[in-house]
Amino acid sequence: MDTLEVALGARSYPIHIGAGLIGDRELVGKTITAEQVLIVTDTTVAPLYLDALQRSLAERTCRTHVLAEGEQHKTLATLAEIVDTLVAENFHRDACIVALGGGVVGDIAGFTAACYQRGIDFVQVPTTLLAQVDSSVGGKTAVNHPRAKNMIGAFYQPTAVIADIGTLTTLPPRELAAGLAEVVKYGLILDAKFFGWLEDHVEALLALDADALGHVVRRSCELKAMIVAEDERERGRRALLNLGHTFGHALESLGGYGRWLHGEAVAIGTVLAACTSVELGKLTVSDAERIEALLDRFGLPTRANGLSERAILEAMAIDKKATAAGLNLVLLDAIGTGIIEAAPPDELLLSVLADLAAN
Amino acid sequence: MDTLEVALGARSYPIHIGAGLIGDRELVGKTITAEQVLIVTDTTVAPLYLDALQRSLAERTCRTHVLAEGEQHKTLATLAEIVDTLVAENFHRDACIVALGGGVVGDIAGFTAACYQRGIDFVQVPTTLLAQVDSSVGGKTAVNHPRAKNMIGAFYQPTAVIADIGTLTTLPPRELAAGLAEVVKYGLILDAKFFGWLEDHVEALLALDADALGHVVRRSCELKAMIVAEDERERGRRALLNLGHTFGHALESLGGYGRWLHGEAVAIGTVLAACTSVELGKLTVSDAERIEALLDRFGLPTRANGLSERAILEAMAIDKKATAAGLNLVLLDAIGTGIIEAAPPDELLLSVLADLAAN
Repeated sequence: MDTLEVALGARSYPIHIGAGLIGDRELVGKTITAEQVLIVTDTTVAPLYLDALQRSLAERTCRTHVLAEGEQHKTLATLAEIVDTLVAENFHRDACIVALGGGVVGDIAGFTAACYQRGIDFVQVPTTLLAQVDSSVGGKTAVNHPRAKNMIGAFYQPTAVIADIGTLTTLPPRELAAGLAEVVKYGLILDAKFFGWLEDHVEALLALDADALGHVVRRSCELKAMIVAEDERERGRRALLNLGHTFGHALESLGGYGRWLHGEAVAIGTVLAACTSVELGKLTVSDAERIEALLDRFGLPTRANGLSERAILEAMAIDKKATAAGLNLVLLDAIGTGIIEAAPPDELLLSVLADLAAN
Repeated sequence: MDTLEVALGARSYPIHIGAGLIGDRELVGKTITAEQVLIVTDTTVAPLYLDALQRSLAERTCRTHVLAEGEQHKTLATLAEIVDTLVAENFHRDACIVALGGGVVGDIAGFTAACYQRGIDFVQVPTTLLAQVDSSVGGKTAVNHPRAKNMIGAFYQPTAVIADIGTLTTLPPRELAAGLAEVVKYGLILDAKFFGWLEDHVEALLALDADALGHVVRRSCELKAMIVAEDERERGRRALLNLGHTFGHALESLGGYGRWLHGEAVAIGTVLAACTSVELGKLTVSDAERIEALLDRFGLPTRANGLSERAILEAMAIDKKATAAGLNLVLLDAIGTGIIEAAPPDELLLSVLADLAAN
């Protein structure tokens, strides 16, 4: 097992990474110390890992709230249902919520922990690659608004993350690929060498090679922990992590949160960011082609077929990352070097979107 | 105008206290700096002060969301409606929410500001005595759960408080008295001299004497700012501010948030806390009588007629202030000296409740 730390002063916390951690009674017992524990999970993950986690928490008052699976349930209404469970079970201020599942479970369970009694402890036990490399680390929690993703939420750090890479063996290929989109992101914005390593290990990763997956989770968490420690509330550099996300959130919202997985929308958004960077003379055409090729080898979509470029642009304007001064975008100066810039004129974006989306 | 400061490091903020501040364009303009401003208010306050505040914000993009009046609307559903307004008006991360009204408006507007895009600025413009002396200061924001008050919320500090004591002249007598219940609380837990001053100025306060009201708001805010600066997230001494509130919240919940105003329920709860303190040999009978007499002179209820003592005790167990180790209560060692202690045995509480509630 490896343990990294997210260095946030009094709110610092460990990320434990390894195979079989959910069944490790000693680790789980030391990490989750509350007497009252609510495990929030979903209908897909519960049959796979809930029993093992409950066994590791055998001596606690342990309750479970199972969510319907999918981003479309990440709503205030679902949060209210979890609170109903907490109130009905008389959960106190010193209780702990454990998020067992992917990004949707982590986001909503974390936001519920942030709000219940104005904040109780929570622990992330991510079971998807996307959650292990990205959403479980850094304290972003939220639910969606019908018109915009993650519009209602909080910065609220977990007290620990337990990333059991053994769970990745049960991950459907489409979910694995969605996680790899975020992994590619880290290489693109921060670490050209890691991007190159990914190009060399596509087959190992798709074959769920344990060493390759372990390296991917560890390196991604290291990079994310570094950025979050620098800029917890996204006043500056943390926004680099949004590469592909402003486009991506717009696509998810237009697709009703059902057409694309988050990571798939980010993959398309990353190609859009790369093409915008090329148009602005920042990135070479051959690097943009390398990016698209890698995403494609991972089985990720790279085109938003059938959407109008105007609809995408309008949905982008609602994005959280907009300010009164206008929209910022994460672009690429090179593979390994992300930059944050004011969005270029609408005409340029529309022409990039028309090339990549409308057919 | 007086200005106090709540000293919370990077989150420190001023409390401006004086008559006519809402119409003071210079003060309002300096205090609310965002370009996009959403004023949240209610149907009672809007006709009285909304125009004046809007005039003071003349050069901004200013929108208004008017809530139905009353604690029963302090729900997640109402929060979702305010978010709908923010999204529809395309409010960005650097926007500001201004709470113009009493405690309900401040609580829900503040919690919405805490959640929208994971946190935007907000400014409190309290227009009731209760909000000016208590709820607008200290960053507690929340909405109610059907079974328990303020169950879903956040610690989220405003960027400023503008307490215009001129607004107290339009306050219905019942609302004025409800605010005085919280004022009495400060004397009881922290400042015997202030309690004595209140006994000497009942008539002046009920006659809305500006000097007397100014002193009450200033002294209450000083005491609250001191406690909040010491213990922002209520790990210890801040809990003193909950004198009467564990009983009070139970009464409000049993009354469907409609029978008693918050301050009225706190008044009854304060008498219950005083009687419990007497039963435990901490407070003298004559001091308990002084407390009840002062509340009574302010026109506040001191009995929870018609409720069963068992129902009150059960509702108290759901209160946020309970932990797995049991319920803590704020009791009185003397007038001016609040203490936090584990609740006494149910039998003792039931007998106090039976004396004061059941008939």
